Formats: sequence, structure tokens, C-alpha cells
Amino acid sequence: MYRTHNCGELNINNLNQNVTLAGWVQKSRDLGGMTFVDLRDRYGITQLVFNSETNKTLADQAQKLGREFVIQAAGKVIERESKNAKNPTGEIEIEVSELNILNASKTPPFTIETESDGGDELRMKYRYLDLRREPLQQNIALRHRLSVETRKYLDAQHFFEIETPFLIKSTPEGARDFVVPSRMNKGQFYALPQSPQTFKQILMVSGYDRYFQIVRCFRDEDLRADRQPEFTQIDCEMAFVEQEDILQTFEGLVRHLFKTVKGIELPEFVRMPYSEAMEKYGSDKPDLRFGMEFVDFTTLGQGKGFKVFDSVEAILGINASGCANYSRKELDALTDFVRKPQIGANGLVYVKCNEDGTFKSSVDKFFNQAQLAEWAEKAGAEKGDLLLLLAGDKAKTQKQLNELRLEMGNKLGLRDKTVYAPMWVLDFPLLEWDEDTKRFYAMHHPFTSPKPEDIPLLTENPGKVRANAYDMVINGVELGGGSIRIHDKEVQKNMFTLLGFSDEEAQAQFGFLMNAFEYGAPPHGGIAFGFDRLCAMFGGHDSIRDYIAFPKNNSGRDLMIDSPSVISTEQMVELGLDYRTES
Amino acid sequence: MYRTHNCGELNINNLNQNVTLAGWVQKSRDLGGMTFVDLRDRYGITQLVFNSETNKTLADQAQKLGREFVIQAAGKVIERESKNAKNPTGEIEIEVSELNILNASKTPPFTIETESDGGDELRMKYRYLDLRREPLQQNIALRHRLSVETRKYLDAQHFFEIETPFLIKSTPEGARDFVVPSRMNKGQFYALPQSPQTFKQILMVSGYDRYFQIVRCFRDEDLRADRQPEFTQIDCEMAFVEQEDILQTFEGLVRHLFKTVKGIELPEFVRMPYSEAMEKYGSDKPDLRFGMEFVDFTTLGQGKGFKVFDSVEAILGINASGCANYSRKELDALTDFVRKPQIGANGLVYVKCNEDGTFKSSVDKFFNQAQLAEWAEKAGAEKGDLLLLLAGDKAKTQKQLNELRLEMGNKLGLRDKTVYAPMWVLDFPLLEWDEDTKRFYAMHHPFTSPKPEDIPLLTENPGKVRANAYDMVINGVELGGGSIRIHDKEVQKNMFTLLGFSDEEAQAQFGFLMNAFEYGAPPHGGIAFGFDRLCAMFGGHDSIRDYIAFPKNNSGRDLMIDSPSVISTEQMVELGLDYRTES
Repeated sequence: MYRTHNCGELNINNLNQNVTLAGWVQKSRDLGGMTFVDLRDRYGITQLVFNSETNKTLADQAQKLGREFVIQAAGKVIERESKNAKNPTGEIEIEVSELNILNASKTPPFTIETESDGGDELRMKYRYLDLRREPLQQNIALRHRLSVETRKYLDAQHFFEIETPFLIKSTPEGARDFVVPSRMNKGQFYALPQSPQTFKQILMVSGYDRYFQIVRCFRDEDLRADRQPEFTQIDCEMAFVEQEDILQTFEGLVRHLFKTVKGIELPEFVRMPYSEAMEKYGSDKPDLRFGMEFVDFTTLGQGKGFKVFDSVEAILGINASGCANYSRKELDALTDFVRKPQIGANGLVYVKCNEDGTFKSSVDKFFNQAQLAEWAEKAGAEKGDLLLLLAGDKAKTQKQLNELRLEMGNKLGLRDKTVYAPMWVLDFPLLEWDEDTKRFYAMHHPFTSPKPEDIPLLTENPGKVRANAYDMVINGVELGGGSIRIHDKEVQKNMFTLLGFSDEEAQAQFGFLMNAFEYGAPPHGGIAFGFDRLCAMFGGHDSIRDYIAFPKNNSGRDLMIDSPSVISTEQMVELGLDYRTES
Repeated sequence: MYRTHNCGELNINNLNQNVTLAGWVQKSRDLGGMTFVDLRDRYGITQLVFNSETNKTLADQAQKLGREFVIQAAGKVIERESKNAKNPTGEIEIEVSELNILNASKTPPFTIETESDGGDELRMKYRYLDLRREPLQQNIALRHRLSVETRKYLDAQHFFEIETPFLIKSTPEGARDFVVPSRMNKGQFYALPQSPQTFKQILMVSGYDRYFQIVRCFRDEDLRADRQPEFTQIDCEMAFVEQEDILQTFEGLVRHLFKTVKGIELPEFVRMPYSEAMEKYGSDKPDLRFGMEFVDFTTLGQGKGFKVFDSVEAILGINASGCANYSRKELDALTDFVRKPQIGANGLVYVKCNEDGTFKSSVDKFFNQAQLAEWAEKAGAEKGDLLLLLAGDKAKTQKQLNELRLEMGNKLGLRDKTVYAPMWVLDFPLLEWDEDTKRFYAMHHPFTSPKPEDIPLLTENPGKVRANAYDMVINGVELGGGSIRIHDKEVQKNMFTLLGFSDEEAQAQFGFLMNAFEYGAPPHGGIAFGFDRLCAMFGGHDSIRDYIAFPKNNSGRDLMIDSPSVISTEQMVELGLDYRTES
């Protein structure tokens, strides 16, 4: 061992001990004959001191240490003159008697500090240096802790962690697969799993009862800001359960994680049907840290001669409490906000509920005070409140108003990062109609079970069928989702038909699962959590990238190792592959 | 929940309780108006009983239950008339009052019993049924338990589990990579990792100090009997350590696993240099459960007119204690054994040390009694022992005699599966010379550090340089191996040169690691354990396949999902790939 202690553990109780530390030079400074060096490792920072009067050679050596040099230093623990209460080692320092440079360092291309001066691309390229920064070290430690506690909880609940294969089979349904050419079976490919979905269902058929896995998954999608081509799931499945069992078990998991990792006792999980979430918040992942529920003004707003309102499907609004004093400029900014292309509303109607009991709106031409008073009453608005209304196609308006609601939540400081509002969204629609391809798609995936009472609707009105599906949402972030699965071969077959699979296609892609269902499949269901997202939420950040040790950029590249890259012609020949020529 | 209890937990203490169980019908039998059904789940088997006198409808229903039907049964726990002491639930049975068929089953294509009547291929195809068999359920449970205890130990030792990427970069060194075409970067490929080697070293450079990961790795090799294209490693790395620290830490891990999972206190780990292992056992993974060390007869055997001996580099033998009474037939069988093509010896010389003090050998023509007595003395052989000698090229003879030694160990019952002889093999050669390509290859991998005292030999006699490398071996099985790494850029560069890399090649493939070494790389080292192999050893089996939930066959195919398979032309076009046409 190159050290007797780490850089985070020595304190006043270790006075006069002879110790050896090893680590990186965080910084050094010379002060009148004394050289002070901050030595850093994963555990903390300890101050080394060199006195040029008592040992000039050593002090000279110390003065030449550059940032990020790796050194080993032996000496005695002494009390500091000027103590640093913020640092656990801040009461002591090491009077160094022996110094050993283990490795030198070039000057890093950016500062290794909590706030670095390096740009994103540069820090991605030198990820090994970026990973030395304390915030990232904390993120990686947090991720480890979350994985430990997840496993502890699930193991105690008799779940087995079972590894499923990575070299599986490509299925056209869903997102695009990454594929892996097979050399031994030329012309054929494996695919990397988008999730272990079918395998975990197979494990239920095999009688394993309670399965989980913290597992890498892969999706070859055009990357949006916060997507990664490879990501990690906490993937779980249980047999002989109903929806209620799953909700209890995994509410328990997340409760355990908050308690053990953050010391927070979560409040009760709200349970809300999808339809209610859409009506009240215009979102299937509402942020319940604040109210500001949607109010339907369609009836009140129509038939009064305001054409914009009269021609639309829905007029929806929110009550921004205490915002009646918003200036023209502030209101214009909100209008600009909803008109942004990514939101896409045409305009915004406001009604100020003045302190004197009158109303001032942007539609005063069409609505008199009594009518506006009816609006205020419907919205439960009081003096000093501000109503904000959007109108149009119902689904679109819901989506737009959701964005406005969240924006107002931000403005009013209602989205406190230290407050957690957990919920389950339940009873999702089983199917989504796609206008372009004129067919239904599975909202969750084709293995999701319809609610038994809705099964008759499957033929009459498939779009109305609700699924035994559920999402866990905290503070507007979807942490996980799952469903009770179909375990009957006939129902599964009908589902594939409804989704436009021919019998041959269904058999070719999922034949093994349907065959398995013929040999005694138990009722089962499960859930998967986005582990990267979970880590980011626990860390209090929105972006997952800094919770992944080696992430890829938005073009799917690893800038550090410079990958993907070309392979040799020999490799291409062995795989029986050639580059496609345009023709 | 479909059940109040599982099928393994009810016993005499639950008498008269009303319970509900769910599971699979293992078997059923009708005995004079009574129907008995063995209900099975992951936890055990509980007997259900149906009485046709008290409830004829229910009993009729029960009689129709087929093997592997999934049922739910409610009833009362009663005491059995004929108890089964071997089964934890064997004192009770359930008097069923309600029966619910959750899913029917076709007759399985093979028996779901400890010993199945199904062939390998059939069981691979119906893996979901094979996985229901008790031995496989135990294997999967064991694997889970080993992963839990591995993580518990390493977490307590302050290791972080850090996930490294799967989509990395192809490197021609070592085994063949599986590659993944990139759609977003056409003409370029990712590679799947053969191990996270470079990433774990990068993590040490980043200051993470103690890393581990239970992680899938990939090798596109022609599969031998017990190889899988994807396999799992316990991958570990530590910074600021010397070899001794690694040995202590991971001896501790394996000791912990044996103690917690098998209740076995391992004996002290023998430490043996590679050279000694080769001299004494002809193997770098000797089975130390028994002695039978090699004896060098080269000097004694040469110059006596026996041409076969006179012309060879080495004459090596073992003393098979108590085997002087072997018959002609038994000796012929041993000769046949060493002549098998996979062993390849030309013949076998034996010397029987008779009970009367005389010797009888297959080379009596060339060696007299006094000379044979010298052999016996050299081998420490006593009356009743049998010497077995092979001759030829030294390295080949060592290998052949190793096989013979293991065979004799088997014959003599010296390889007891309940006895464990753990060891470290140390000081491996750094490089291996390859006659075909006339160059050195890294024996471990190109990041392995030479022993400091051997560094001068790197230029004079590279083949003699020993590495700071170590393997953990138990009972002749290599469980893991690792090394202290190079952490100096210049040494690493020289190593690449020695291995025939041009500067450009080294930079293109490992530039990021060498660059990282310029910014303060600490001394570091690590180890990786083959997790599949570890599970098989703990389970007492030689084959890893039944310790993997979904293994591939020897052609790299998953017979259950029928993969690899062809992909669509659209997928090929998107990837910019075409099939290579022979020309």
C-alpha cells in the first residue's frame, strides 16, 4: 500500500501520528518560507506543509510540484494555525518529512474544480480529468449507493438478480435496434436488447417468481438532448401478482431509497388515472408539488362572439394565484412563451382579478364583468389572481397549458427541489392511433394486458381500452413504468393482430414467447425504472449525463476513445459485409 | 396476490390455517377416491388433496389437471397420514376447497424432473421449461447469492461499482471483437468490450481508487465446449496498491464467498511462482488437492542406450502411490490415454516398485535393478508404488504429464469435490514468443507491468522478463487473474513497440490511455474473475452452461429465440451495409 491513510480521514485525534498519504496535488502556495500543498484523493483533501527553514531540499522539491502531480508524502500530523472548519481534515496538516513523486502531470486543459472552466466537448474528450472534479465524484458515489440499496431491498424481498443475454434478436416493433453481425452465422445478426422484456416474461414462465436486474439497454435513436444510446434500467418482474402488489412493492423500493440514501421519508403516493392527469394537468407525468389545476372554460367562453373561442374544441385555463399585478411586459413574455415553436399556441388570454373586485382581461371587448366574474368563480380565483387561458384542439391545448403551468410553477417558486411529490399514474390507454400509418400502436408495448372489464371494447372501440399499466412519477419526472402482462396465448395473438402483425410476423419475432405461453404461464407483471434518471433526480439535477461515467455526445460518439471508428477490411471480410454503394 | 403462502413454507405449525397457494402441477395421482396433486413453485412443493366423497365436482376437476398446469388452490392445512421427512412441507397437505386453473399446459416435450429425459438441443430450445427443473433453479439461486455476497464484500471495502460503456472501440490486439455498425456515423463501428480493461484503468487515473463491476464481456471466438460468446466477469481495480494488497483483498473476497455461501473456511492460499508450477505440475493452474509432483529423470534416464530417452530434451515422471499392482490392461489404458491426439505423447514408460523390493519396468532391457532403484529413490517411491514417465520436448512433456497426473488423481479419488485447495500462481512471464508470426505477444495483456528488477531484461532477453501478474487457482481451475499495470507513459510506449505496434497504431487504439497517463496516473492494478466459472465451481460442476440462464450453443446460437437471424433490407440500408459478394 502506498499510504497508511486516505486524504479524508485524519483529524485532531490523529495528532503526532506518523502517516503516509498519496494523491493528487490540488494546489500549492508559498507563503514566507512555507509551502502548503492540498493533497486530494477520492476521500477528501489534506494539507501538506513544507518548511524551507527546517528542510530546504524538500521544500524546494515541493515548490516544483505542479497541479495534478501524483505524490506520496510521509510525515507527522500537526495542528494547523489557521483552521478550516468547512473541511473535515481542516484542523490538521501534515509536516512532511519524505516526498515521493509517483507521476508527473502536464497542466490539465481545464481546471479540476467544482466549477470548471472547460467547455462540454473538451471535458468529454478529457473525461478522465473531468471525472476528478468533486461534483462528478459525488455523482458516481451516489449512483453506487443507489445500486447497493436497490439490490439490498429487492434481495430482502426474495428477488433474484438474473442476467439476461445481450446478443439477442432484432424486432422491428418499437425503437431501432443496434445490431451485431455474426461471423459464425454469416448474413445473420444479433441485436442488442432495448430491454430484457421478453426474457423477464420467460423467467416468469420458468417459475422464477421475482426477478430483477440492473441492466444496460440500447436504443439506436436520433439522440435528443438528454438521451443516450446505452442506458441503464432497474428491470423487475413478478409472478402471481396483481397491479396492487406491484405498486406496493416498488413504492416500497423508492421509499427505501429516499430513506436510506437521502434520509427523506416520502409522503403517500398519489394515485391518479391517466384520464384525470390529462384533464387536470394536461400531462401523463404531472408535477404535483403545486396545484394550479386546469379549468375548463369551453362552455363559459363560447357563444359570446369571440371567434377564436367559438371555433375551437376546448378552452382551458389555469389560475396563477397572486399574479394580477403582472405588468404588460410580463404578460407579453408569457404570450411569447406559449408561442415558441416547441409549444405552438397561437396566443394567450388573460384575466386579472383586481384587488378592487373588477376584472381586466385581454378579451374585454367580448366578455363583460359579470361574465368574467363567472370565469373567476369557476376557477376559484380570488382578488389578486390571474387567469391564463389557451384555446384550440383539446389534446394540443392540454399539452400547451401543461407547459405554461410548469413555467408558472417555476416563476412562482413552486417547484422546490427539496420537496418530493410522488405519484402513480394508472389506467393508461392500451393503444394509440397513428394517423400517418393508419394503425394502432401499443402505448406501452404489445405485451401489456388490457383491463379485464375493457376487453369487450377491443373489437368495438380499441382506442377506448384501458391497460393495466402504471407509471411512477415524482415531481413531473417519469421514473419508471410497467404493466400487468398478457399471459394467455390467444389474447396475445389477438393483440398482435390488432397491432397489424401477420401471424407469420408474430411467430417469427415472438414465437418463443407465445409457445412458452402454451406450457403453463402464470399471471405476471413488472416495472422498469430508468436508473440514470433516478440518479439524476436523487442528485438534484435534470441532466443524466453527469451521472454516467462515460457518456456519449449527441451524435452518439464517445469523444474520449474516439468511437465509433472504422474497422479493418479483414474484419469486414470475416463478417461477410461490405459498405453499401449508392446507386 | 394470487396466494397467501408459497409452496415451500407451510408445515405442522400451520395446521388448520386457511391458505391459498399458486403454482405448477408437478404430478398428480388418484388413490381410491382421493386425488393427490404436488404443487410446485420456486420455493418448494406442497401436496394438495381432493376427496371425491366430500367434494366430487372438485375432485373430478383435479383429476383432469395435467402436468405443468398453473393453478390456484385454497383450502385448509391438515396433517398427512404418510409423512415425507425429506420434504420441508412433508408433514402437511392442503385439503382443497377451491380450485382455479390459471393457465393450462400442453404436455411438455421432456420431463421437468431433476434428471430430465430431454436431449441438450431440445432443452435449449425449450429453455423456459428446462429452467423449471430444480437443479437449474438452484444454480440460478446460487448465482444470485454469489453476486449479492460479492457486492456486499466489495462495498464494505469501499469499492464503487461503476458502469463502463458497452459501445466502445474495436482493437485488433487479443481475441476478435463483436462489432456494432453505427447508423449515425455510417461506415463506422462500435465494438462490444472483451473486458472493461482500459476503462477501469482510466477510472484509476480519475481517482476512483477502488472500482468493481459485475459485467458482461464479449468475445467472438470459435467456441470450444465450455466457452460462451458473452460471459460475465467480476472486474476489479485498485489504485495506490502493490501486488500484496491485491492478493490480500481478493483472497478475502473468495474466502468471504466460501464462508457465507457454502459455510466453508478455506485453508491458507498457497503462493507459487509460475516457474515452480510448471516444474512441479506442468501447469499454470495446478490442482493442489493432491501431490504427485513431477520428478525429473533426465539425467538418470539418459546415456544408458535407450534411444527414446537419449534423444529428448526431458524425461519427466510421477509417482502413482500404491499402483504397482496395475494390470497389463490398466497400464495399456494409461498408454492409450497419453497417446490420445489431444494429449499427443508417443508412449509411456512405467516402473513397478514391487512389494518384494524388486522392480518391473517397460524398459527392463535398458535399465537394471540398481538403476531403477535410483529412479525410485529420486521419486521417493516406496514398495507398491508405480512410476509413470514421459519423455520429449520439455514444454510438451510437462503438458502431457500434467494430463496424466490429473487422470491418476481422478483414478485414485484424490480430487474430492468437497475439498478446496486455493492458490496464487505468481510471476508469470510478461511475453510469449509466437513462432508463426515471429513476434512477442503479451501473455496477460499489453498493460501488464514487468517486475521492476526485470526491466533491464526487456531489451536483452524479453522472453525472460517476469510480470507482476497473478492468477487465482482453486482445484486446478483458474478463477481469476490480474496484474499490476504500467502507469508510466514511456514504459507503456516501449511495451507497445515490443509488441510490434507502430506509434500510429498504438496512438489510434490506445491513445486516450497514454494521454491519460500524462496527467497524473497513480500506480494501480487489478484482477478479473470469471463469474460463470466461479458459479460452476461453487455448484460443484465443470460446465458453466447450466449456471447461465440463457446460454448459447457451440455455434453461438440461442436456440430458444432462434438468433442470430436475418435483418430487413431497410435496416441494412440505414446502416449503409451490404452483404459481401465473393469474387
